[in-house]
Amino acid sequence: MVDPETIQKAQRAHEEGSVEFEPEKPDIYGDAHPKELLRLIPEHHDVLKSLANKHIVSAFQFDKEMLEQLFRLAAKYESNPNRYSNPLKGKILISAFYEPSTRTRLSFESAWHRLGGDIMSITDRASTGIAKGESLRDIGEMFNNYGDCVVLRDNSEDAVIEMMQTLRIPIINAGNGTDEHPTQALADLYTILKWRPAMMEENSEPIKIGIIGNPARMRTVRSLLTLLSNYSDAISEIIIIHDDKDEQLFYENQEQEIKNLGLKIRTETNLDKVLPELDVVYINAIAWVKDDYEVMGENLKLSINSPLKPSSIILHPLARGDELCSSLDNTPHNWYFSQARGAVFLRMALLTCLTQRTERVIDVL
Amino acid sequence: MVDPETIQKAQRAHEEGSVEFEPEKPDIYGDAHPKELLRLIPEHHDVLKSLANKHIVSAFQFDKEMLEQLFRLAAKYESNPNRYSNPLKGKILISAFYEPSTRTRLSFESAWHRLGGDIMSITDRASTGIAKGESLRDIGEMFNNYGDCVVLRDNSEDAVIEMMQTLRIPIINAGNGTDEHPTQALADLYTILKWRPAMMEENSEPIKIGIIGNPARMRTVRSLLTLLSNYSDAISEIIIIHDDKDEQLFYENQEQEIKNLGLKIRTETNLDKVLPELDVVYINAIAWVKDDYEVMGENLKLSINSPLKPSSIILHPLARGDELCSSLDNTPHNWYFSQARGAVFLRMALLTCLTQRTERVIDVL
Amino acid sequence: MVDPETIQKAQRAHEEGSVEFEPEKPDIYGDAHPKELLRLIPEHHDVLKSLANKHIVSAFQFDKEMLEQLFRLAAKYESNPNRYSNPLKGKILISAFYEPSTRTRLSFESAWHRLGGDIMSITDRASTGIAKGESLRDIGEMFNNYGDCVVLRDNSEDAVIEMMQTLRIPIINAGNGTDEHPTQALADLYTILKWRPAMMEENSEPIKIGIIGNPARMRTVRSLLTLLSNYSDAISEIIIIHDDKDEQLFYENQEQEIKNLGLKIRTETNLDKVLPELDVVYINAIAWVKDDYEVMGENLKLSINSPLKPSSIILHPLARGDELCSSLDNTPHNWYFSQARGAVFLRMALLTCLTQRTERVIDVL
Repeated sequence: MVDPETIQKAQRAHEEGSVEFEPEKPDIYGDAHPKELLRLIPEHHDVLKSLANKHIVSAFQFDKEMLEQLFRLAAKYESNPNRYSNPLKGKILISAFYEPSTRTRLSFESAWHRLGGDIMSITDRASTGIAKGESLRDIGEMFNNYGDCVVLRDNSEDAVIEMMQTLRIPIINAGNGTDEHPTQALADLYTILKWRPAMMEENSEPIKIGIIGNPARMRTVRSLLTLLSNYSDAISEIIIIHDDKDEQLFYENQEQEIKNLGLKIRTETNLDKVLPELDVVYINAIAWVKDDYEVMGENLKLSINSPLKPSSIILHPLARGDELCSSLDNTPHNWYFSQARGAVFLRMALLTCLTQRTERVIDVL
Repeated sequence: MVDPETIQKAQRAHEEGSVEFEPEKPDIYGDAHPKELLRLIPEHHDVLKSLANKHIVSAFQFDKEMLEQLFRLAAKYESNPNRYSNPLKGKILISAFYEPSTRTRLSFESAWHRLGGDIMSITDRASTGIAKGESLRDIGEMFNNYGDCVVLRDNSEDAVIEMMQTLRIPIINAGNGTDEHPTQALADLYTILKWRPAMMEENSEPIKIGIIGNPARMRTVRSLLTLLSNYSDAISEIIIIHDDKDEQLFYENQEQEIKNLGLKIRTETNLDKVLPELDVVYINAIAWVKDDYEVMGENLKLSINSPLKPSSIILHPLARGDELCSSLDNTPHNWYFSQARGAVFLRMALLTCLTQRTERVIDVL
Repeated sequence: MVDPETIQKAQRAHEEGSVEFEPEKPDIYGDAHPKELLRLIPEHHDVLKSLANKHIVSAFQFDKEMLEQLFRLAAKYESNPNRYSNPLKGKILISAFYEPSTRTRLSFESAWHRLGGDIMSITDRASTGIAKGESLRDIGEMFNNYGDCVVLRDNSEDAVIEMMQTLRIPIINAGNGTDEHPTQALADLYTILKWRPAMMEENSEPIKIGIIGNPARMRTVRSLLTLLSNYSDAISEIIIIHDDKDEQLFYENQEQEIKNLGLKIRTETNLDKVLPELDVVYINAIAWVKDDYEVMGENLKLSINSPLKPSSIILHPLARGDELCSSLDNTPHNWYFSQARGAVFLRMALLTCLTQRTERVIDVL
């Protein structure tokens, strides 16, 4: 019934000092990486201003110039998190997670709070007017009156499109079914460019990226492929590594569409065979199948025993399951924690643009 | 499984510029209406101060003078939303929605945040001490320690009365079963007076109001009838338009009570027959029957084809169902969106009074 | 169906002025008590600074000097609640209540808001990554990126220990299964010392404390016994009053451990027999049995008819059930409401230390 060891453990913990923690963690958490981006990218404020009065629905909305200006602002926040405290003072975020997701919700809410704004959260669908049959257009109309920005997660592809029809404040698609999750892809690419800023320059040595997953069913993969197409010259190849039981790997014309975007893409089922070639390994826990999800195949897992190229980095949108072993956490391959950390700063940058408060944080006025 | 059109839709959306939105909307959202109230009502600060140390339970608590001073303050906020940022700085709202209601909760929370205060939300009953058998009096005692104001929605008539017994901070009844919803009625009347400020003057041309619904079972209707009684000279008649299947239209002595308040009231079942006479049409989606609700009858619906008087306005507390067709949204009859918007400013006015911070926002000190 | 009396009750309520409330309550809510602590305890800021970079897991972490410095700061906040508004400005609390508890959650959140910080709440386990199989270590890693402090309530003993392994921000154990609830015990002891500050001095007249409950199954009792051991010279005896059906009153070596801490302890089943001897009576509503809880035995109840020593005080961590009759609420025995109120100030003190913002509120710099 009761575990007598627990209290003794706590007592010992105190005696041995193990309730103490180290507030700082070196290396991959260092701020050298964002500072390099800050140094390399010249500030063009007009580009950020063009996000005014726009919704964020799809990764297709971002071109190279916009991406780099956003990353510059994210890097500025990440390099000096305590400097810009209140650009969103007096602004209210409506954080609407009709499909529950603590991680993404907290990432957005932390970003908003760090900018000094206030938040109203909806954490489940059951308590909303939707359950009584209210239309998403009416909910959009309601949100106009209550806040300054909406973040929406929904398990339907169309919810964000519907709500946009009546919104006169910006909405961010934080995951719509199997379709897109553009801010996750922005955070992914921000991490890759922090790791290798040379990709932004012409004639950089091209890298090879492996993506473990199914582009037909994974919204994070879909949005990421779209964003990577802005750097097709810097990417020699993208290899989709998938379960050989997968019957449908791309939706209808998706493979051709990706190639049209300039990306060289091929598919593979043997992970360990291609791992030694890869510079970036992107792995995801789950593939969405309708309202449910399936776990990755048994042979698509990474651990410290995987034949990784020594200089390679691993990305994962998290939360993870068995597919990414914690034995990799304390290795230089671990850029997935940095990726999660950077996502907050990336979202801060985007939210500052959408609320038209960039003037309070840019260098040159 | 996957809809290939969605991503193409987003891509097209971007190309065609349809992620852009118009932040402003003309006409019925304009601020000419609140400014007229502001001009017509002289400020009497002492009236607002009399709300100190009072709970808000019932529409019966408001007389004409109090109503107009509240509406004046609401109009001041609505006319200039960005001017008064922090009168509630340091104050904590306990937003207790034991009966879930996203719309009303967000309206109150938005009002509180716009005044600069902090919020703690309870969005379901299951997670509370009530589920373990804690009394509402003890919960009131607890709330005294944690906040400066309580907003309570509960499906029981008596919960707010019970909690009041121990509270030493103000509580607002945000809907108690089928009984009352006084702040909704305040927002309704505020909208009517913005539309026709002349009603506040003596000898104004009287208007005819139709209320589609059941006063015995609809808390919003009950509270509204009470408030309207303060303007009985300006109202020639109130017509209750109801489903002919309705067995009980008024509770026991309610019809007589309403007449005692000075209102001329009659009932009708043929909506289209009376519509051409009505200046204000008040329609509601649902009537509460115990813990469940029933939808309005099939023949009690409004659409652009309804024989509305051209100058008439429609009010609806929202969320709506089929009874109010969206074909009316882009017509001058649509004052229901303005009603929802004004509700935030009305609640700001009331909350400022209850927290005794009116001195920070009134014109004359 | 509809209760016609309710609306009449509200109308009468208004007429009779019963919507008015008294904002202040005398005597036991007075601030004479915290001021006495403030006067008696000299400030030693270095002691509070030693809480930097530490998690709060167990009551074993606190010695007499630390306790009194925390109580001094709590008393300072309680004596003058409006003075210190923003020491935690810009700081974000992650309020993670995987086991729902409105009371404890609101107590912590109110404390954090009063210090000027922002909050992100998780109010149920179902919506989290845990439900998808995410490890607590990964959640800890995630929380590092999102906030400045974590408060965790979980029905497992080990959750807080697990999460600590990856956290680089402080975590407070707000109840871990049947193990500990250290901040409740801190609030309990803070109340006892406000009632009798002489206990802090040498050679004070010792008091007798009765604890109605089961130390093997009640986390609040376990943590309180640990803290009381710091005042063993001022306590002549602790009597555990339990249900005679209780098969296991202490876990394995707990009774001996308590005696090793210097406390004189004995057990008793006849409450009314020992009540006349007791100076402090501590009663609790529920004992946890795995994921469920049992209500106290029938013969372990207190009411105004109980043979209490006239000068005795009653403490209860609340929420209460039948075991503590409301007939005692208006007697000088009622220190349980003061205990709930003081808990907010105690938590403010602890949170200020953990976020390293004590310098903004201490007397001497």
